[in-house]
Amino acid sequence: MPSPAETAQSLTPAAIEAAYSLIQPYVHRTPLLTCHTLDTIASTPQSPDALLGTPFEGQSPAHPRFRFFFKCENLQRIGAFKARGAFHALLRLVAERGEEEVKRRGVITHSSGNHAQALALAASTLQIPAYIVMPRISTPSKIAGTRSHGAEVIFSGSTSVEREAVVEEIQAKTDAILVPPYDDFNIICGQGTSGLELAAQHAELTGSRTLDAVITPVGGGGLNSGVATFFSDKPQTRVFGAEPSFEGADDCRRGLQAGQRVEAVSTLTIADGLRTPVGFINWEVISNKKKVEGVFAVTENQIKAAMRLVLERMKVVIEPSAVVGLAACLFDEDLRRRVEQEGGEDGWDVAVVFSGGNTTVEAIAKLFSSV
Amino acid sequence: MPSPAETAQSLTPAAIEAAYSLIQPYVHRTPLLTCHTLDTIASTPQSPDALLGTPFEGQSPAHPRFRFFFKCENLQRIGAFKARGAFHALLRLVAERGEEEVKRRGVITHSSGNHAQALALAASTLQIPAYIVMPRISTPSKIAGTRSHGAEVIFSGSTSVEREAVVEEIQAKTDAILVPPYDDFNIICGQGTSGLELAAQHAELTGSRTLDAVITPVGGGGLNSGVATFFSDKPQTRVFGAEPSFEGADDCRRGLQAGQRVEAVSTLTIADGLRTPVGFINWEVISNKKKVEGVFAVTENQIKAAMRLVLERMKVVIEPSAVVGLAACLFDEDLRRRVEQEGGEDGWDVAVVFSGGNTTVEAIAKLFSSV
Repeated sequence: MPSPAETAQSLTPAAIEAAYSLIQPYVHRTPLLTCHTLDTIASTPQSPDALLGTPFEGQSPAHPRFRFFFKCENLQRIGAFKARGAFHALLRLVAERGEEEVKRRGVITHSSGNHAQALALAASTLQIPAYIVMPRISTPSKIAGTRSHGAEVIFSGSTSVEREAVVEEIQAKTDAILVPPYDDFNIICGQGTSGLELAAQHAELTGSRTLDAVITPVGGGGLNSGVATFFSDKPQTRVFGAEPSFEGADDCRRGLQAGQRVEAVSTLTIADGLRTPVGFINWEVISNKKKVEGVFAVTENQIKAAMRLVLERMKVVIEPSAVVGLAACLFDEDLRRRVEQEGGEDGWDVAVVFSGGNTTVEAIAKLFSSV
Repeated sequence: MPSPAETAQSLTPAAIEAAYSLIQPYVHRTPLLTCHTLDTIASTPQSPDALLGTPFEGQSPAHPRFRFFFKCENLQRIGAFKARGAFHALLRLVAERGEEEVKRRGVITHSSGNHAQALALAASTLQIPAYIVMPRISTPSKIAGTRSHGAEVIFSGSTSVEREAVVEEIQAKTDAILVPPYDDFNIICGQGTSGLELAAQHAELTGSRTLDAVITPVGGGGLNSGVATFFSDKPQTRVFGAEPSFEGADDCRRGLQAGQRVEAVSTLTIADGLRTPVGFINWEVISNKKKVEGVFAVTENQIKAAMRLVLERMKVVIEPSAVVGLAACLFDEDLRRRVEQEGGEDGWDVAVVFSGGNTTVEAIAKLFSSV
């Protein structure tokens, strides 16, 4: 088996393009939306008071100029970009091992989130049996959602040891092929197609103006490293990542600072799609400064403030994980200073990937009822 | 002054087209969205249990087939269709009385809702002074929103008598011209342009398939009667209205049953844009069976259920008033039976006007935190 570093080297823009031609019939070309109001808000300096108690306290607030392009993967099938990677992984499996073998063995994963539903949808579409191991305590709506796509749900305990034990048990019985959620060449290539698509859409919308930057959430890192792979031969477009900082969820940013991948994270950040540590392959990509120029961390309150703006001003429903990139643009003075200094009067065209929209009215109520 | 019936007679499709050519540079061509999931849900018969305790209890649930086309006026400027009427009213004033007179006198209205912000935006765009009388108890965000468009906000008490007294006082001082929120020829023509636009968009999307029906919310009735005016020479497209039933908010439906306009309503329905009785001119249009074929009433819980589906499945933010038409399609067995019987296996293409999206995360939290 190739090492993570070797796999990372084989991640090329051509691999993303190949993935796109394979999955295109199965995924939505999600819209790339603009919002004048959010541009104006982000292009207004923060008040000095807003910086009190932050690492930027005492600085004179930056005056960046942002033109945002929101890649709405919340409108992707199953409500998240994960559909791209899941379809790509299964289509590759079928291409490499033959339809008969894959249909006989089936596929398996453990996830309580968007990857579970994405794999279930892709498997049912391609008529492949799917086994999804979910913690017994998963919310009923997520269990029902996964089942509604025809997957067999098997319950486990909540720790990763317990979940992996159940996966092995099912694999022993069925010989099902494991499809990992993010630390996998084919998954990364699938997620990277969102970058390919947004670049084309930005060019269509602007008459091929330069796209100065793209920012995506970083959880396991599949989306960010896929997008960074696509832009790795387009040096005019910088790629950034964003994470929650709550209870150490900013493992990627901390790892970059320490020069070493952080191996475990235990956090209950509201950005529940971003609670995992960055995968090994993804770390190889994201820690390569030529591919990803920086990863920013945002607080729970900054995530909520960004969510409020998107819900109330753009009228678009996103999950908390989806807005960490926008929150970084709104509140991180290091990033804002950089846009001011490098973008100047012209400012930057910045693509922000809204990774998903799978939330409920109860979850929104819980986030905002005690404010 | 012409009577309401005379004014209603002069409401023609040509008047809507003339309004459109006037306001087009100032308003958004809002998207017409489809949603496969909502089509499927609406095209599934309700369970007989769901009909218990409703007027349809004991009936065998209908099996209609819906293909929805959602006209997203929540993405209109100021977040609601009201921008159309306000721009049209002011552009007509300028055309009829001359720029100098209108700018000297200014315009005035009383509203705590979307009409206030719409008039403020239109007035500031056309550089006309605007006076908006708002109840002292209006939420700070609405006051700030109205002021942010450059209007002068004047506070009053909450009753219509108190509000009208303040309007007269300001008019005595300024000679400002009153722009009513819905019971007005020019306002109705402006709102009707949403119907013109959605008809063209439906034709573009479907290759000129028949649009079988349009359903809009009915509050003061400006939107519904404007849309009905546009379709009044297109008999293949039926126009319907929808209202909340809570505390008698279904004044239009009750009036139609009794053969007489209901003059006053006192309701605190969550669909706060629909608390007013239907205007006199609008009543003349809506009570004309050749123009509007029926008005349906929905409960607070049905409004919340429809809101939940739009937020969670379509990922689109709408205000409660915006979903009463969808709620009627989902829950009213009279309407559903009619679609089954007249649409048969083919079903109906139904345009649903989402009238606005001006809500807050706190308001969503309040609606759904106790469920």
